[in-house]
Amino acid sequence: MSSLTSREVHLISRPEGIPVPDNFTMVEVEVPPPEKGEVLVKNIYMSVDPAMRPPMTNGQTKLNSVMGAGAIGMVLESNNDRFEEGTHVQHRSGFREYFVSDGSDLQVVKTQGEAVSTHLHILGGTGLTAYGGLLVTGQLKDAETVFVSAAAGAVGSIVGQIAKIKNCRVVGSCGSDEKVAYLLDELGFDYAFNYKTTSIRRELHIGCPDGIDVYFENVGGDHLDAAVGQMRPLGRIPVCGMISAYHSKGARSEGVTSLANMVYNRVTMRGFVATEFYDIRDQFLADMRKWMSEGKLKYTETILEGIERAPDALIGLFTGLNTGKMLVRLADDV
Amino acid sequence: MSSLTSREVHLISRPEGIPVPDNFTMVEVEVPPPEKGEVLVKNIYMSVDPAMRPPMTNGQTKLNSVMGAGAIGMVLESNNDRFEEGTHVQHRSGFREYFVSDGSDLQVVKTQGEAVSTHLHILGGTGLTAYGGLLVTGQLKDAETVFVSAAAGAVGSIVGQIAKIKNCRVVGSCGSDEKVAYLLDELGFDYAFNYKTTSIRRELHIGCPDGIDVYFENVGGDHLDAAVGQMRPLGRIPVCGMISAYHSKGARSEGVTSLANMVYNRVTMRGFVATEFYDIRDQFLADMRKWMSEGKLKYTETILEGIERAPDALIGLFTGLNTGKMLVRLADDV
Repeated sequence: MSSLTSREVHLISRPEGIPVPDNFTMVEVEVPPPEKGEVLVKNIYMSVDPAMRPPMTNGQTKLNSVMGAGAIGMVLESNNDRFEEGTHVQHRSGFREYFVSDGSDLQVVKTQGEAVSTHLHILGGTGLTAYGGLLVTGQLKDAETVFVSAAAGAVGSIVGQIAKIKNCRVVGSCGSDEKVAYLLDELGFDYAFNYKTTSIRRELHIGCPDGIDVYFENVGGDHLDAAVGQMRPLGRIPVCGMISAYHSKGARSEGVTSLANMVYNRVTMRGFVATEFYDIRDQFLADMRKWMSEGKLKYTETILEGIERAPDALIGLFTGLNTGKMLVRLADDV
Repeated sequence: MSSLTSREVHLISRPEGIPVPDNFTMVEVEVPPPEKGEVLVKNIYMSVDPAMRPPMTNGQTKLNSVMGAGAIGMVLESNNDRFEEGTHVQHRSGFREYFVSDGSDLQVVKTQGEAVSTHLHILGGTGLTAYGGLLVTGQLKDAETVFVSAAAGAVGSIVGQIAKIKNCRVVGSCGSDEKVAYLLDELGFDYAFNYKTTSIRRELHIGCPDGIDVYFENVGGDHLDAAVGQMRPLGRIPVCGMISAYHSKGARSEGVTSLANMVYNRVTMRGFVATEFYDIRDQFLADMRKWMSEGKLKYTETILEGIERAPDALIGLFTGLNTGKMLVRLADDV
């Protein structure tokens, strides 16, 4: 009997700056048959996320072993009563084609008509990040002015749409004119600009003439420097991430010099992670499914095909390759 | 009958960098006798505060007219039933020796045995800033680790002592070895360092080996850059001011590059002003008087004599002239 093999992606050197293909290699490993209590999973989709970048430099991501990533697979073979064969499961064992699990790291995905891939973004951690960061950390109120950076990205595009649902004025920054058009024409933003070809400070004065109530921070550096000066009294800056800082050792951004403006306007800036919102996940799923069914909440996926493209997908997050959620399809969903 | 004259300080040019004596001039004006409903006030003490600096650049402080500052005076002559002659009153009409008021801008100072000057610092806005910023904005909990910058200054020295009263580990930075000794020997800080002769980042690793729960921010720039990297999970940074930024146009500090570290540790940074705490002023006064009477809360005043020293007092805030509260004594309290 010939054995099953799985290709998997290893990090073999620590990137300096934006990662390059040579930082990664593909390794073929043998996958043993599942024993009693175990299941064999075939991965269908895996997610790449900017937050994967700092661990590649700070050492949390180990060299010469398989990388991790959020992914959804299908149970091909089950010796565990909790998982029927054909069931979709979500887990952190991306960057590989197949694996065997005792089930302790697997969550069954329960779809209600939506594509299973949505559980890796709009109905998953990405969506919860946007929803919780904006409504809980950001304390968004009806009809406020919201600025979101990396607005055409997976989180930013959801943030902007939820803010529109809450009757807010929504302004977004992104890195290409095509993405500007996407934000304005597809997602209904009130104003959007390409930060690569204009002055962020000037655009914020045009886009938010009465100031910003909530700046949903994905970028850091020059974006934050410009936004702090434009915050309204009691404004809030939920800090989801600072992608501009992720390539440097210690996640250092360009210098932010405007923070003294937080004092008189009593501005709050707070870092957050999605795990803080697990207690409101049921409400989150109910709201998101309702808004999707009403046509108020759309998503776009940028999908690369095959595990051999997984490094390109990760690299592409930092070169502007994706609109909406970047995914890798590892196998057909059959 | 010869008339009463008052000397007053005018700003005559906008400083670049730290103010210099030539930015100010002294003008002598005639003070009319108080009419019906009015009082004549002789100023005793006036306060200078770092927050006076940005308005000197941004235009809020008018050129060629008398400057304002918190002060305490005595009612010399009264045609207003609300004010007996000899009463101490607090107001914003510093930088002058005498003035006439209809009383609408005057608050009667009610002492309980303490020196009247304390109402310009430890029992006044300075104290309320420290108390509210640490306990309300900073949400200080018992036995946490607190770092305060400009720790030998008016606000910082109170912050550190309140934190000690709350059984915290307290670390302070200041700008001279004499002030380090003051913090350690007089105020009971656990650790203190002179930021001018050492590495802030290194000192914070020594002084706060388990990280910082609350960084009480008075300085900005390099202090904030170092502190953010040392914050514990769910740490808080109440932003009282950023004195290092106050000399530049737009109150720009040195660039802060470490803010991405706020994300995973879910750190909150919030600007605040003392007016937010007016609703807890009774509790504040009761607590502060109790701690003072128990010997747990001390204060130091740096007093310059005569209105001709008022510009020096203001300038001295930025050159490290003061330990504790900087005051100008304008007249004897008789």
